[in-house]
Amino acid sequence: MCQLLGMNANTPTDVCFSFTGLATRAVEHKDGFGIAFFEDRGLRLFVDPHSARESPVADLVKRYPIRSGNVIAHIRKATQGRVALENTHPFVRELWGRYWVCAHNGNLIDFQPRLHGAFRPVGDTDSERAFCWLMQELSKAHADVPSVAELSATLRELLPVLHAHGTYNLLLSNGQALWAHASTRLHWLQRQHPFLDATLADEDLTVDFAHVTTPADRVVVVATEPLTQGEAWQAMAAGELRVFVDGASAG
Amino acid sequence: MCQLLGMNANTPTDVCFSFTGLATRAVEHKDGFGIAFFEDRGLRLFVDPHSARESPVADLVKRYPIRSGNVIAHIRKATQGRVALENTHPFVRELWGRYWVCAHNGNLIDFQPRLHGAFRPVGDTDSERAFCWLMQELSKAHADVPSVAELSATLRELLPVLHAHGTYNLLLSNGQALWAHASTRLHWLQRQHPFLDATLADEDLTVDFAHVTTPADRVVVVATEPLTQGEAWQAMAAGELRVFVDGASAG
Repeated sequence: MCQLLGMNANTPTDVCFSFTGLATRAVEHKDGFGIAFFEDRGLRLFVDPHSARESPVADLVKRYPIRSGNVIAHIRKATQGRVALENTHPFVRELWGRYWVCAHNGNLIDFQPRLHGAFRPVGDTDSERAFCWLMQELSKAHADVPSVAELSATLRELLPVLHAHGTYNLLLSNGQALWAHASTRLHWLQRQHPFLDATLADEDLTVDFAHVTTPADRVVVVATEPLTQGEAWQAMAAGELRVFVDGASAG
Repeated sequence: MCQLLGMNANTPTDVCFSFTGLATRAVEHKDGFGIAFFEDRGLRLFVDPHSARESPVADLVKRYPIRSGNVIAHIRKATQGRVALENTHPFVRELWGRYWVCAHNGNLIDFQPRLHGAFRPVGDTDSERAFCWLMQELSKAHADVPSVAELSATLRELLPVLHAHGTYNLLLSNGQALWAHASTRLHWLQRQHPFLDATLADEDLTVDFAHVTTPADRVVVVATEPLTQGEAWQAMAAGELRVFVDGASAG
C-alpha cells in the first residue's frame, strides 16, 4: 500500500510542512515518490523512483516553497508494477485543454478495462490503467470541460466500478478542484481562521499557521493517515467521494 | 527566441555539463526553463517559469546526475504566450502508451490548425498548439506505435507545414529516438571513442569525457548554438530533419 497527500487552497499555499510529514513515512514506502503542483492551469510534476527520505528531488520539494492551489503527492510501496519511473505516481494526462493528475492507494483485482480511446498506460500498474479508464469515460461523458459539479456527478457513477474491483483510495485534480475517493482509509482536515499551531505526528516539527497566513486563507489537506497531532482530522467513509474547491468541501 | 538542448545516447548519460552550458545563456532567455529526461519509458519533467540561472530547480538539475537515454531542454525568451508555467517548454503528451516530449525555438505566424482530436493546448503558445497538431496528425497516420523509420517518414510530411508558417526549430522524443528539425539554427555533435576534453563555450568549465565514459559509449548532443569549443559541431540546413537513435544519426 501507498500513502496519499492532497491539498486544495483558496490562496496559493506551499506544502513543505505536510510533505515533510509524508516523507517521514517513506521508510516502509520506499519504492518511489511523486508530487504534482498546479499553478493555475500549469503543472509541475516531480517524480523519483527512490525513497522520499533519500531523494535529492524530495529534498528540493521540502525546501523550495512552491505555492499552489492544488497538490497531489504519493509515496509508493509497490504492489502491482515494478519499481520504475513510469510506475511512479502521480500520473498526468491532458483532457479538454487541462492537465489531470491522479494518485492511487490500494490494489485493484482483475481490472482489465477495454481502453479504446486516447488514453493508454505507459507503465504496468493497476493505478495508471484505472486512471486511463477514468479519463476515457470522462471524455465520453462530456464534449468539453464541464463544471466541477457535473464532473463530480460523472465520477459518482464511475468510481463504484473501480471500488468493486478492490481498494481504490484516489486523489484527482484538474487544477480547479481536488476530488478524494475513499475505499478504506482517507482523512481530511480544513484549516482556516483562527489558525492554530500544528505538530507533525511523526516528526518533532511545529508550524504556527497564524504567522504564515492571512485571515482569508482557507486550505484543505487530505491524507491517508492524519499527518498532525491536535487537529480535527475527519475520516472518510468507504465509497465516499468528496470534492474540494477553494479550500472548502463542496460536496 | 529560445535555446534548445537535446541529448540521445546509447547508454544512460547525464547532461549536467551541457545543461550548465545552456543555463549560462539564460541571461537573455530568462522567461523560464524546462528539461525532460526519459528513463526507458518513464519520464521526468522539470519546469520553472523563472530563469535557469536563478531557479532552485535548475540548480538541482545541474547537480543531480540523472542518467537518461533521451533529454530535451529549453530556455525561454517569450515571443507568443505569457510567462507562465503552462507556457514553459518542454510539453508532454501521451500517445500509444508512450510519452512524447517537444520543445520549440522559433515563431509561427497564423498557425491556427483545427484541433479536433484528443490533443488540446493547455497554455497559449504557438509551440504547444503546433505540438498538439503534430500529435493529432501522427495519431491519425498510424493505428499503433510505428517504427522509428515510419515515424520519421510521417514527420517529413508534416514538418514542412509548420516550417511554412515561420521558424520551427524542433526537438521531439518518445524515449526511443530524438528528432531534430532545423528551420534556422540548430547544431549537432556526436561524441564517441576516443573521447576528448570539452570546454564550455560560455563558462570556464572543462570535462574529460574519457574519464566518465567507456569505449562503447556514444552520445549525440543537439543545441541551438554550439555549447563547447574545439568540438566538431555540425550546422543543420533549413528544413532538415534528423533522427538520432542510440547516440548516432539514423537519417
